[in-house]
Amino acid sequence: WNAPKDVQEPKVHEWIQTLDVKEGETVDWSHFDVAILGVPLSRSSISASAASENPDAIRRAWKYFTTYNMEEDVDLTALKVVDLGDVRQHVTDIPACHRHIQEAMVAMRTHHPHTLPLVIGGDHSITAMLVKGWKEAHPDERIGILQLDTHFDLRSLEDNGPSNGTPIRNLIESGTIRGEDVYNIGLHGFFNAKSLKVYADEVGVHYVTLKEARKKGVAQVVQDALQQLSQKVDTIYLTVDMDVLDISVGPGAPAATPGGMRTDELFEAVLLAGACPKVKAMDLVCLDPYRDVEQATVKAGVHVMLSFLTGLVKRKNA
Amino acid sequence: WNAPKDVQEPKVHEWIQTLDVKEGETVDWSHFDVAILGVPLSRSSISASAASENPDAIRRAWKYFTTYNMEEDVDLTALKVVDLGDVRQHVTDIPACHRHIQEAMVAMRTHHPHTLPLVIGGDHSITAMLVKGWKEAHPDERIGILQLDTHFDLRSLEDNGPSNGTPIRNLIESGTIRGEDVYNIGLHGFFNAKSLKVYADEVGVHYVTLKEARKKGVAQVVQDALQQLSQKVDTIYLTVDMDVLDISVGPGAPAATPGGMRTDELFEAVLLAGACPKVKAMDLVCLDPYRDVEQATVKAGVHVMLSFLTGLVKRKNA
Amino acid sequence: WNAPKDVQEPKVHEWIQTLDVKEGETVDWSHFDVAILGVPLSRSSISASAASENPDAIRRAWKYFTTYNMEEDVDLTALKVVDLGDVRQHVTDIPACHRHIQEAMVAMRTHHPHTLPLVIGGDHSITAMLVKGWKEAHPDERIGILQLDTHFDLRSLEDNGPSNGTPIRNLIESGTIRGEDVYNIGLHGFFNAKSLKVYADEVGVHYVTLKEARKKGVAQVVQDALQQLSQKVDTIYLTVDMDVLDISVGPGAPAATPGGMRTDELFEAVLLAGACPKVKAMDLVCLDPYRDVEQATVKAGVHVMLSFLTGLVKRKNA
Amino acid sequence: WNAPKDVQEPKVHEWIQTLDVKEGETVDWSHFDVAILGVPLSRSSISASAASENPDAIRRAWKYFTTYNMEEDVDLTALKVVDLGDVRQHVTDIPACHRHIQEAMVAMRTHHPHTLPLVIGGDHSITAMLVKGWKEAHPDERIGILQLDTHFDLRSLEDNGPSNGTPIRNLIESGTIRGEDVYNIGLHGFFNAKSLKVYADEVGVHYVTLKEARKKGVAQVVQDALQQLSQKVDTIYLTVDMDVLDISVGPGAPAATPGGMRTDELFEAVLLAGACPKVKAMDLVCLDPYRDVEQATVKAGVHVMLSFLTGLVKRKNA
Amino acid sequence: WNAPKDVQEPKVHEWIQTLDVKEGETVDWSHFDVAILGVPLSRSSISASAASENPDAIRRAWKYFTTYNMEEDVDLTALKVVDLGDVRQHVTDIPACHRHIQEAMVAMRTHHPHTLPLVIGGDHSITAMLVKGWKEAHPDERIGILQLDTHFDLRSLEDNGPSNGTPIRNLIESGTIRGEDVYNIGLHGFFNAKSLKVYADEVGVHYVTLKEARKKGVAQVVQDALQQLSQKVDTIYLTVDMDVLDISVGPGAPAATPGGMRTDELFEAVLLAGACPKVKAMDLVCLDPYRDVEQATVKAGVHVMLSFLTGLVKRKNA
Amino acid sequence: WNAPKDVQEPKVHEWIQTLDVKEGETVDWSHFDVAILGVPLSRSSISASAASENPDAIRRAWKYFTTYNMEEDVDLTALKVVDLGDVRQHVTDIPACHRHIQEAMVAMRTHHPHTLPLVIGGDHSITAMLVKGWKEAHPDERIGILQLDTHFDLRSLEDNGPSNGTPIRNLIESGTIRGEDVYNIGLHGFFNAKSLKVYADEVGVHYVTLKEARKKGVAQVVQDALQQLSQKVDTIYLTVDMDVLDISVGPGAPAATPGGMRTDELFEAVLLAGACPKVKAMDLVCLDPYRDVEQATVKAGVHVMLSFLTGLVKRKNA
Ligand SMILES: [Ca+2]
Ligand SMILES: [Ca+2]
Ligand SMILES: [Ca+2]
Ligand SMILES: [Ca+2]
Ligand SMILES: [Ca+2]
Ligand SMILES: [Ca+2]
Ligand SMILES: [Ca+2]
Ligand SMILES: [Ca+2]
Ligand SMILES: [Ca+2]
Ligand SMILES: [Ca+2]
Ligand SMILES: [Ca+2]
Ligand SMILES: [Ca+2]
Repeated sequence: WNAPKDVQEPKVHEWIQTLDVKEGETVDWSHFDVAILGVPLSRSSISASAASENPDAIRRAWKYFTTYNMEEDVDLTALKVVDLGDVRQHVTDIPACHRHIQEAMVAMRTHHPHTLPLVIGGDHSITAMLVKGWKEAHPDERIGILQLDTHFDLRSLEDNGPSNGTPIRNLIESGTIRGEDVYNIGLHGFFNAKSLKVYADEVGVHYVTLKEARKKGVAQVVQDALQQLSQKVDTIYLTVDMDVLDISVGPGAPAATPGGMRTDELFEAVLLAGACPKVKAMDLVCLDPYRDVEQATVKAGVHVMLSFLTGLVKRKNA
Repeated sequence: WNAPKDVQEPKVHEWIQTLDVKEGETVDWSHFDVAILGVPLSRSSISASAASENPDAIRRAWKYFTTYNMEEDVDLTALKVVDLGDVRQHVTDIPACHRHIQEAMVAMRTHHPHTLPLVIGGDHSITAMLVKGWKEAHPDERIGILQLDTHFDLRSLEDNGPSNGTPIRNLIESGTIRGEDVYNIGLHGFFNAKSLKVYADEVGVHYVTLKEARKKGVAQVVQDALQQLSQKVDTIYLTVDMDVLDISVGPGAPAATPGGMRTDELFEAVLLAGACPKVKAMDLVCLDPYRDVEQATVKAGVHVMLSFLTGLVKRKNA
Repeated sequence: WNAPKDVQEPKVHEWIQTLDVKEGETVDWSHFDVAILGVPLSRSSISASAASENPDAIRRAWKYFTTYNMEEDVDLTALKVVDLGDVRQHVTDIPACHRHIQEAMVAMRTHHPHTLPLVIGGDHSITAMLVKGWKEAHPDERIGILQLDTHFDLRSLEDNGPSNGTPIRNLIESGTIRGEDVYNIGLHGFFNAKSLKVYADEVGVHYVTLKEARKKGVAQVVQDALQQLSQKVDTIYLTVDMDVLDISVGPGAPAATPGGMRTDELFEAVLLAGACPKVKAMDLVCLDPYRDVEQATVKAGVHVMLSFLTGLVKRKNA
Repeated sequence: WNAPKDVQEPKVHEWIQTLDVKEGETVDWSHFDVAILGVPLSRSSISASAASENPDAIRRAWKYFTTYNMEEDVDLTALKVVDLGDVRQHVTDIPACHRHIQEAMVAMRTHHPHTLPLVIGGDHSITAMLVKGWKEAHPDERIGILQLDTHFDLRSLEDNGPSNGTPIRNLIESGTIRGEDVYNIGLHGFFNAKSLKVYADEVGVHYVTLKEARKKGVAQVVQDALQQLSQKVDTIYLTVDMDVLDISVGPGAPAATPGGMRTDELFEAVLLAGACPKVKAMDLVCLDPYRDVEQATVKAGVHVMLSFLTGLVKRKNA
Repeated sequence: WNAPKDVQEPKVHEWIQTLDVKEGETVDWSHFDVAILGVPLSRSSISASAASENPDAIRRAWKYFTTYNMEEDVDLTALKVVDLGDVRQHVTDIPACHRHIQEAMVAMRTHHPHTLPLVIGGDHSITAMLVKGWKEAHPDERIGILQLDTHFDLRSLEDNGPSNGTPIRNLIESGTIRGEDVYNIGLHGFFNAKSLKVYADEVGVHYVTLKEARKKGVAQVVQDALQQLSQKVDTIYLTVDMDVLDISVGPGAPAATPGGMRTDELFEAVLLAGACPKVKAMDLVCLDPYRDVEQATVKAGVHVMLSFLTGLVKRKNA
Repeated sequence: WNAPKDVQEPKVHEWIQTLDVKEGETVDWSHFDVAILGVPLSRSSISASAASENPDAIRRAWKYFTTYNMEEDVDLTALKVVDLGDVRQHVTDIPACHRHIQEAMVAMRTHHPHTLPLVIGGDHSITAMLVKGWKEAHPDERIGILQLDTHFDLRSLEDNGPSNGTPIRNLIESGTIRGEDVYNIGLHGFFNAKSLKVYADEVGVHYVTLKEARKKGVAQVVQDALQQLSQKVDTIYLTVDMDVLDISVGPGAPAATPGGMRTDELFEAVLLAGACPKVKAMDLVCLDPYRDVEQATVKAGVHVMLSFLTGLVKRKNA
């Protein structure tokens, strides 16, 4: 039967290392450029969601990908990436779940600050906790957000607590970030209450709808946002809500709808973000593998992650 | 448990009113800009179809939509819309079904002529009855048709009676409309017999295939058709056959195929029609929710309807 | 179009009344034999579940059922049944959700104690809250449980809080019920840790595995349990975990497995419970309509509910 | 590439002959024991149905079956069977469809009265036309019906015309058959209005619910019905509504529900009917292949047909 | 994040050990009662099949099972089980695949003859290779086969080579086993050519159809077969073709049909085999996880395996 | 019932002739412009695939297409096309399968060299055999390849023999073609090992990634490749791997991924190839109809074939 062998040209699962620390050992974190962290929390979603199953679905799917990006002629093995496993969640205590997520980010920023956190959710509520964790570890930094989403995520926390409809408002109201440092690209359709737009305008959130973005090209609009953010913040946090995709290419994102982004637009957007030096963390959220069709959305999720890492290699080579 | 409350920012189902007339009451029709009418008939389809289930599927799905169109910054609550329910159908008497549909249109044009009828089918055979009803109510009007479809719908009534392959021919042969007042946009692929094209040319039907339309842009081609029609007819009737969509975005339209229209093209087309003052009625047909995948087509159907209404708001504001 | 008419032979949705209380009105509760209450909570499930969507799925599906039980020659219209809607849930505060559920039961037992509560979950964690609510309203009663389930639901609350794996233990440890007053029928396969059986034996829980039950007949075993409980308790609470069904007939119950109960066995079991005078409340839990196949499980859920009510009519006529 | 060869042990499609009559030729009908006729009509269904696609689905599926019945040690090649193709249907003229069906039966009874018609529907409305055709061809015969169904099919024709809910009433009211010559086996659940039972009792229809039938065994109850009918009628017509099956084994029968018949019960029932000398025609209706799961229902449909033919071989050998 | 912990009550994946031999280490095989071996070969199937994906599907699914069999009060941790991984397969050289499978069995019988091989296929062609491997390792033994299958698997090797239709004939013709030492239980329907039955009779194969078996009870018939085999052979090899199951409970077995075995019948049958001292190896074949519905068949496959092991514990305790 | 009639405007299945040669007859091959050949082989795929079922799926689907290409105003009946059926395959002897495929091409080139072979696979391994067959029949020709694919198909034959990952390398290493005569268009994503690109560069294979191609337009890049090839080779062989499509439009191509080609791009590309005089054969491979969604990929496959033939008509008319 199969003996493991020395792999010359690895698949993604043969390249990403898994942390398996034995009692008393010390990990040499200096190795790692990127740390992947799963956050299997979706009981904080407004609608029923199994996005909690996404980290494992992504891990199972990435074995179908090589490390070589054909279109960019980039080999991801130039990076050292470690998979830290999942943040522990609780079945009935959502505040504890959120606390663990924030603590996990603090721990990462403390023990290995040179590794870039790449977080796989989970629902969008986790972004608030992750950015708060970053702020806790780096209290003096000004943090900007590049958000690719069908929604503002600016709902009031008074309605349902820190659910997946609220992370950006949560961050603004808690003083973690400024409204003007949020750039949302991809809004479309009839999926945001008008009052949220009014609020967005009040707090200065920048946004470009998908229709508007396509006039210039989505890539150009993303590039502009990165440039503007780079001039004013210390750290850009990229958050990708998979429901920004059109429902035909993202059927597994519960809130995806007709009229959304194409995958080639999304892949290019995150590649640009990966190449931007100020982008220091990313997450990918709201992908429910139980509702996927032929794994199309899960595979798109892996592709998003690998496109970001492609940008990161380009950044290092630049 | 949930007490109903006064809704500030309604979802579509909280905004569209349902008519519930008590014995002896009179309805003040002057309120309403638009009247939605379901036509659950699909036993007149050539192929087996559950498009009869579409009006209810659309109604169940529209609760996931807000009234605010993010990309156009338009709030649909500027319109008063009433859902009249469904035209009664008969299980085995198709001529009676068709008669009821025509009568329903006559009734609407008689009792509340200032409300725009927005009809949700059903299969495409209903369009002939609806336009005939319009003509019966307004015998002196010249009526034009803007048809978004993969097919001509010019088959002979001698083959199968007034089925879903015949509405346009039915209208031309009955003298309800002139061939030259039909503009069909979206034809593609191998789905029309050549003799139908010959017939179309003979009677002067205008048509632009999808490939041709994309050279100018679908929006521009639609705009041109609306302009030409506006100069010669009194009323433009918009009919949207959902099988004009590509099968990947319209899997629930039984005759959708690879190589069809994108949803962003379709949404823009109907928005332009909604904004055109001569467009006074629309229908949406041939959507079978039983064959849909993750409700993608039903949601696209709702979006078509709301995009049209967005255009209508723009028309009023113009 | 369709005018509502006086229905002679109602479908279930035409027979079950919906409560719609206007400001200042008083409801005459003396009308109602049974009150249906939805509990759309599943974020307390150990595994991802959309059982929260079940109350509405059940309501949409019951319109396909008449009120006449052919096999028993019983017409359910002999009962007055009211649908109270859903207990309000919170997106991120699970303890609040649980509190509302308990309060809802207390309210029902206080304002209309002669109506039998029939609760549609939701996951199994809700049973603990509902029985606690009963106990709060009737502190002197001794309460027994008839549980149809693949699982004991005796997990420790220390692991994950009051999740769907714990309701029976929760009730025993809180002193709400005695272990000896629990009768679990339907356990099978490899889905309970041995320590839970040891615990069950220690606290005196009665149980009969499916294989054992089939030797006598499931119906006989249920009848025996009802008889034994009737002799010692004041109130029997029936709880039906839909995962007791075989996966082929209950694909929408996330924990259903091969080797489970048949639907005819389950329908007969709940009919017997409905006919037993000491059975004063029931719930139906752990049905996730998003994972259902051709609505088979949702329809089975409706059938369970109607079979129970058939028994109730028989009880009244006895 | 594949040359056709002389088949020693045929699959079903290699054994059933297809009629392909050339101009001027005469068919020697004396060859044939059984004639299969497709009736692709389902636009007369109350609910949307693609049972019209069933004849072809059955034909495509039967190539997976051999002619040898392992459990009965019977080889169907003892019979000569011809597939006559489909009765021509019209898209919008349902009365014409019904007329063609009746005429097809008359033609079969006239041109080759010794061949047994085996009809594949289509919805249940066709049974009325087929039995009327039989009566037209054999006006002096007394005809009995053995119906396996979840429903009475006794709805009034005044509601919806001759739909799939009415065939038995249609036959009784038209004087084609007597109520007392109808034996319905398999009724269950909440799917018949009580008034239909009252009507059934008034006109003397015999029926045994599934629960009742299982006490004696479904096979015994079928045998008893065949015996009683054989003593009073000239011809027994067997009609199998596939929705008599449980939804888990008949997901493709639109009205199948939990609590229905098992396939082994149904196969045995039709085998017994096939073996009974008075059974001279059968149909199989209400199977919608578009809603099937892994072709389970279509394969069950083929099995029903072949089980009936197995009985027919036994009859010939008896 | 999750630290691995000492598991008190393991799930199946925490109990089954995985072999991970380092260079130069020696494995102490005396530990192991059972060795699981995956055989991911299905390109030898007559029909297209992804049964090659089954070993991994089974492994992913068994983490949902505990080791405690509730109905038998048996804990599988009484056994030591090791998962050896998969036999290496070749993409285009089927004879090499078959050779590797036979060699794997020889290796197991040579290096750790006291461990019972439990093989997860793959298609049924592998059984011939596995039994030949046993014979090669134990040339003096007389080997009997207990086969649970819808088919004889007695097709001639001259047609298609050693495909999945031939294993039993392959073994008989090669002199590995005698026809009289084969006991096939579960044949049903129209899925075996009559000539195969004739051949079976000629070579003395014993068989009981499902209908016949149910008269006595499947369990009793299996017990009888085990007893008869035990009196004449040294080793009984159990082979479970998952297509013996009814299509409603085994949708993922490509050749499963209506009218097959229930899961409770199958689980009891393999439990009895597990308890029989002469049963020294088993395999489970013809399960294609790509065609499964809600994982029902894969879970049934795991249950078959665990039921067999339950019997093995009983055997040890007897 | 339906009498066959003289078809004026045929559907594709009424236009394509089927060869049915009687003993002793001679076929007049001079009739035929194109010969369709099915190659139902997919057991040589690296991953489990039912692409063997594709030729029949394509044949069943083409009856939904007319012969009239609306967008090009071309009627395919200008061509005479014959369907030769399938090359016979063996269940367990893959080298024999490959041999038969090569022989089939030799036979076609020998008996009717003026008919263009249009081959429907099957997996991509068949392309090597087909091109070798061409070379065997025309040893002096220089053959070029236009390959539309997500992959290079340049894997070493030493790994898995002549599998679907190797056809282009197989052809180069066997001296059948030169590396410089291969033009691959459509590579994208993370699905080719870097070493394959290195090998491609070494042997001079031309390739344009999808991202690169879209800058000029896919059509232009295809046109350029055809022009370059036309100047140096005698025959261009077009091979279309359906996994070049995006997974949303080609869900039935097992290796399709997010980020692939649109159908309109692919249809235009093959139309251009069809119009190019040097293109003398084509194949279409790696389409697994069992994994398709609403037949989208199979219908795209038919469209590819018909678009190619549209080009062929244009070529003849040029
Ligand atoms: Ca979102
Ligand atoms: Ca979001
Ligand atoms: Ca159309
Ligand atoms: Ca149309
Ligand atoms: Ca349970
Ligand atoms: Ca439970
Ligand atoms: Ca019926
Ligand atoms: Ca029925
Ligand atoms: Ca088998
Ligand atoms: Ca077998
Ligand atoms: Ca490929
Ligand atoms: Ca390829």
